Amino acid sequence: MNYVMAAITQFHNGSSEVVLKARGRAISVAVDVAEIVRNRFLSDIKVNSIEIGTETVENERKEKFNVSSIIIRLGR
Amino acid sequence: MNYVMAAITQFHNGSSEVVLKARGRAISVAVDVAEIVRNRFLSDIKVNSIEIGTETVENERKEKFNVSSIIIRLGR
Repeated sequence: MNYVMAAITQFHNGSSEVVLKARGRAISVAVDVAEIVRNRFLSDIKVNSIEIGTETVENERKEKFNVSSIIIRLGR
Repeated sequence: MNYVMAAITQFHNGSSEVVLKARGRAISVAVDVAEIVRNRFLSDIKVNSIEIGTETVENERKEKFNVSSIIIRLGR
């Protein structure tokens, strides 16, 4: 719900676009945030674009692995 | 990995588009499948479109709740 409030605050402060980015299991959270902002709070907000990708991240043992990512752009 | 194999099989059998749908926490799995198909197996495959939405589902106690959804269309 903090992410929802942060997105709404950005729009209320005059932003024309808010970008949600997430990786791995958090991808579903980004989608939830986009849907809650649009459906429950700001019905004039649309999804401008959705991109998916793959990023290489490193853990504390310096092992590299791939993780999926999403970028959701919301706009008026 | 079963979903990856299912998508690849559809393309090998001549499909021009494969549609991945998921709800809730499984959304990140759909993104993983799309990325693995594109990056590891079929480099000519592109993301045709990505849609997000909200669906109302009912649990075994007949309580209704909203869940986010994603539809990823892959194509050659």
